[in-house]
Amino acid sequence: MKTSIIAVGTELLFGQVVNTNAAYLSENLNHMGFDVMYHFVVGDNPGRLRAKLAEAFEDTDLVLLTGGLGPTQDDLTKEIVAEYMGAELYRDEKVAEDLKSFFEKRGGHMADNNLKQAYLPVGCTPLYNASGTAPGFALSKNGKTAVCFPGPPRELKWLFENGAKQYLEQFMEKKMFYRVIRTIGIGESDLETLLMPLIDGQTDPTIATYAKEGECSLRVASQRDTAEEAEAAVDEMTARINELAGRYIYSYDDEELVEVVVRLLKEKHLTVAAAESATGGKFAAAITDVAGASEVMKYSYVTYSNEAKISMVGVPAETIDTYGVVSPQTAEAMAAGAKKVSGADIAVSVTGYAGPDADEGHNAGEAYIGYAYEGGSGAVSVNTSRNMRKWNRNYFMLRMLRTVYLLLTDGPEPENGSKKQ
Amino acid sequence: MKTSIIAVGTELLFGQVVNTNAAYLSENLNHMGFDVMYHFVVGDNPGRLRAKLAEAFEDTDLVLLTGGLGPTQDDLTKEIVAEYMGAELYRDEKVAEDLKSFFEKRGGHMADNNLKQAYLPVGCTPLYNASGTAPGFALSKNGKTAVCFPGPPRELKWLFENGAKQYLEQFMEKKMFYRVIRTIGIGESDLETLLMPLIDGQTDPTIATYAKEGECSLRVASQRDTAEEAEAAVDEMTARINELAGRYIYSYDDEELVEVVVRLLKEKHLTVAAAESATGGKFAAAITDVAGASEVMKYSYVTYSNEAKISMVGVPAETIDTYGVVSPQTAEAMAAGAKKVSGADIAVSVTGYAGPDADEGHNAGEAYIGYAYEGGSGAVSVNTSRNMRKWNRNYFMLRMLRTVYLLLTDGPEPENGSKKQ
Repeated sequence: MKTSIIAVGTELLFGQVVNTNAAYLSENLNHMGFDVMYHFVVGDNPGRLRAKLAEAFEDTDLVLLTGGLGPTQDDLTKEIVAEYMGAELYRDEKVAEDLKSFFEKRGGHMADNNLKQAYLPVGCTPLYNASGTAPGFALSKNGKTAVCFPGPPRELKWLFENGAKQYLEQFMEKKMFYRVIRTIGIGESDLETLLMPLIDGQTDPTIATYAKEGECSLRVASQRDTAEEAEAAVDEMTARINELAGRYIYSYDDEELVEVVVRLLKEKHLTVAAAESATGGKFAAAITDVAGASEVMKYSYVTYSNEAKISMVGVPAETIDTYGVVSPQTAEAMAAGAKKVSGADIAVSVTGYAGPDADEGHNAGEAYIGYAYEGGSGAVSVNTSRNMRKWNRNYFMLRMLRTVYLLLTDGPEPENGSKKQ
Repeated sequence: MKTSIIAVGTELLFGQVVNTNAAYLSENLNHMGFDVMYHFVVGDNPGRLRAKLAEAFEDTDLVLLTGGLGPTQDDLTKEIVAEYMGAELYRDEKVAEDLKSFFEKRGGHMADNNLKQAYLPVGCTPLYNASGTAPGFALSKNGKTAVCFPGPPRELKWLFENGAKQYLEQFMEKKMFYRVIRTIGIGESDLETLLMPLIDGQTDPTIATYAKEGECSLRVASQRDTAEEAEAAVDEMTARINELAGRYIYSYDDEELVEVVVRLLKEKHLTVAAAESATGGKFAAAITDVAGASEVMKYSYVTYSNEAKISMVGVPAETIDTYGVVSPQTAEAMAAGAKKVSGADIAVSVTGYAGPDADEGHNAGEAYIGYAYEGGSGAVSVNTSRNMRKWNRNYFMLRMLRTVYLLLTDGPEPENGSKKQ
């Protein structure tokens, strides 16, 4: 089905906001077999929005619009789409109630202009928004369909996953099934080379690799006449991928590494603690981002200074003096100390240079991941050779997760330091 | 001057690439006082590019195009623009020479199709590209101007800074100045209501509100004959905004809240520590994401369990038993304890229900932010009424930052708990 996307918002035309919504919707629509032909961006201007909506519907039958559904005066998308489709607005009592309780629960009063969001076009399919205040909706007339989303990317994604996607499935010619396989410990080009026998000349299922920060994902997709056939084709291909790359795979279901680690810790009734220097709490924050993390993490330590490494997790001052604060010995002592003081089953640590600058002839991106578990303790060296602070900190955190993942599955990383028994 | 931007590339319509070029050009064009009215994205399809180019020139006199200037068969932007302007192509010998030496320097031979890039429209202003192989160009006819850039962002930026910007200055009518004001602690609609006396019927400077996660930004922009007049108009409006909403403003210069907090802590030579339950390390991770954070944070505590609150930061067990773990009393004790054990000048804490579910009749999104500083200690209550764990955790973290920000500026939040002296 021929599709276009119209993003509404003057902030996009000012260059203040990048139009990631169009990329997100395009990727998902293409996965579903829709043919995205145009993106448009217009400001909060009724005349120009009216004109571009008409242009979009000249060439395409499905138009997705993002932004301009909020409570403010310049939010006009809903009104223009309803006008184009010749639909009146009605007050949707569910939205009105949701808005009232949303503001009541927060103990705040609701500014009257918020009720603007409770009006929807007659005959639309409402897309109720549990992730924000403005609902989306879908509206069809004479074979032309408009689907409207709020502009905040988080809300747009929630509404796409929880309503819009299901609504759009009625327009899919073929049934599609796909699976995202997540790997860690191998780069994109190496993974592609490894899987070339499967990728080469392959038409369906398709295999695509996506590099993410420090990870690589595989998307295996099939479009067949029935969902069952598509799923069977993906399953068969997944088995062949597993034969070639199984040792790098940590999820067949697009789980985040941290979700897998927390799930494994729960299953094994184990707890984890961290002593974080370079990541300054990112590991603990990632673990506790997963619902139910209180079962697996009780204590964690941000030991950003030498004194904190000594007083919070008992790193011997001599270790820092002798080997330096960024050393495998200090990393191992941090992990061993964190395990001891927290009583956790597994402890992991990091000490390193996040950058952008580094000290004493070390380069940014150099770090050591320490670990301690019943089988002993050790440290793994990491070196990104990048001077990008945030990238390095995220990568260090992923490597801490990988270290814990390997302890929970195959045991420590081969390149690790001393493994005492 | 009315302007549109057309990005050419099927990869954008697949969602594989985000259209950052449009944002970059829009921001720079707005700074120069151009009025960007549309962004378009089309695939590598001559018919559709031809159609959108004609549409863009219907409403706007200046069209910037990105992508489709390379050596391959589907690079068609130059040919379509030349055709639209009625210009033949000529072989530009400088480009041809540059291409030859480019490949010679790399010791490789040049594939013949690269010479395609040496052909430019007769009468154009070439934009020679020292950052890559494909030149850009500007071409005017009958008051309509097209400026073409290669798609790779690095090359586009180089060509904009080294040629295109200077070329476009001939069209500048007015000078623009704008400022982005960041606020926290007030929702978008409340902020708009508060500022309605300034927004209503306001033509220049314009005031626009943008909601971000847990925050809201204001963009104040003016276009005048001189940059000085525009800046003066924005300054005058900023002062009026400050009168109405000053207590919510934390930056007049589009800084992140965490950057402001770390800067203020450095300026005042103060250190901060946190005791984090619901946020599980997000506050410490945010502070240490800022380069040079080691000056302001030495120790921080992830006290995810009751035992950790007691043993790590010395919360009295009776406090938890008497008032509950999610209570202002526990939050205040966590902060007071964190200040004591870390020796930090300011300590902040959080205890609450991140969700998605909550316990004992409490709702997800309820939390208490504790603080302790030389002036005393207290706690602030927060209630988002959202069952979105990640959103709540991020909002709690922002409120912890706001609490520290207020301690560093106006003193504790008015709605806070006991302020002991």
